Amino acid sequence: MAERIDDLQCRGYRLIQDTEGFCFGIDAVLLSNFAAPALRKGQRALDLCCGNGIVPMLLAAKTEASELLGIEIQSRAVELARKSAEINNETERIHIIEGDLRNIRSMGLSSSMNLVTANPPYMNSGIRNPETAKQIARHEVMCSFRDVAFAAGYALKSGGSFFLVHRPKRMVDVIAELRSLGLEPKRMQLIHPFRDREANLFLMEAVKGGGRELRIMPPLYVYERAGVYSSEILRMQGAAKELM
Amino acid sequence: MAERIDDLQCRGYRLIQDTEGFCFGIDAVLLSNFAAPALRKGQRALDLCCGNGIVPMLLAAKTEASELLGIEIQSRAVELARKSAEINNETERIHIIEGDLRNIRSMGLSSSMNLVTANPPYMNSGIRNPETAKQIARHEVMCSFRDVAFAAGYALKSGGSFFLVHRPKRMVDVIAELRSLGLEPKRMQLIHPFRDREANLFLMEAVKGGGRELRIMPPLYVYERAGVYSSEILRMQGAAKELM
Repeated sequence: MAERIDDLQCRGYRLIQDTEGFCFGIDAVLLSNFAAPALRKGQRALDLCCGNGIVPMLLAAKTEASELLGIEIQSRAVELARKSAEINNETERIHIIEGDLRNIRSMGLSSSMNLVTANPPYMNSGIRNPETAKQIARHEVMCSFRDVAFAAGYALKSGGSFFLVHRPKRMVDVIAELRSLGLEPKRMQLIHPFRDREANLFLMEAVKGGGRELRIMPPLYVYERAGVYSSEILRMQGAAKELM
Repeated sequence: MAERIDDLQCRGYRLIQDTEGFCFGIDAVLLSNFAAPALRKGQRALDLCCGNGIVPMLLAAKTEASELLGIEIQSRAVELARKSAEINNETERIHIIEGDLRNIRSMGLSSSMNLVTANPPYMNSGIRNPETAKQIARHEVMCSFRDVAFAAGYALKSGGSFFLVHRPKRMVDVIAELRSLGLEPKRMQLIHPFRDREANLFLMEAVKGGGRELRIMPPLYVYERAGVYSSEILRMQGAAKELM
């Protein structure tokens, strides 16, 4: 299996990826940039569906959190994430749990996290990618959004925040599930590829036990014009060369 | 009681308003612009909480609908809306029902409308405006959002659209209620006062019995810079001088 090492363009951090597997995209960079300011010194964070560990790695680079946990069901991705923690000298703070997040109750994480992140599988229907690793990363094969949100709510301390990135077409599902699990949507940002195009991603912060009041941030445009990233994207730490 | 007649800047239509009551704002103009393209020749539309009739009047000016109904609980607003229909020679198409939308089942409108609009009271808490007319228009004193959405779902034909404008802080309530009533959110647009400011309004189209897939349109900015309306707003028909 072919591996490559990418420079994350963020304080020298690097990430090992399987060129035949699921490689991280702009979604993970946007998510870690959205979540990082809320993660303070000495706090603990958990990333669900962590894959090759891109989000814990970027949060390690950007914050002084004391521990960054990841849960991932695919052995190959777990192996890569652990290797990346090693090459960045982050084995003290980054711990990857190989397991099924539907078994969150048996992992000893009850109400223990200040912050939870997830870049979950987006699709609940449509043609499945025939390669299993990519299929699991993209489609709700192994877990539904409700499973992910339940795990987040279970692991969060009261008042802690769940940060996620998802597709607008699933927004109603996401909002309905979050509220039904006591994770109140508090802050949202829409991501549009261009100024005059429909949104293709959204970032959301939901607070465990939070009051009912959503705020919608100014939108983010990925491209200024065809082939030219916007200044907001260019300013983002952790946007690897592959994205640029 | 003082009245004034405003030119709606849309095909010569005018609106009578009570200068001491609730006068229409940009919300109604945005809502009618968002809804009008969906209302086709010969179709019927209903506006809930129609106030002085601004939305039915703008839809009369912009479409070839055969009938534009409004429901309003405040007698004074009903009187003004009917007068406006008269001065615009629209008494054939515009009919204002004086009544409580919570009694929608007794109004003979079951599954009869192609389109329903609402610019409902936004606030479910906070300090109440001491003037009753404005209080009823702004706060959920006489009806909750659920009452409004129930009335929309009751009056719509299957496959018909409910267009509404509301505040982002209430978006989760709005989305949850719509889905629970079988009115699936399908299209949304965020309105920001400026490019770099949080959204302060959103437009939504929900379809009775629609499939689960939300689209998010490019956002709309009201001001280009302080005191200068954006080109999108300036292009909008029906944006009365008061707004400009």
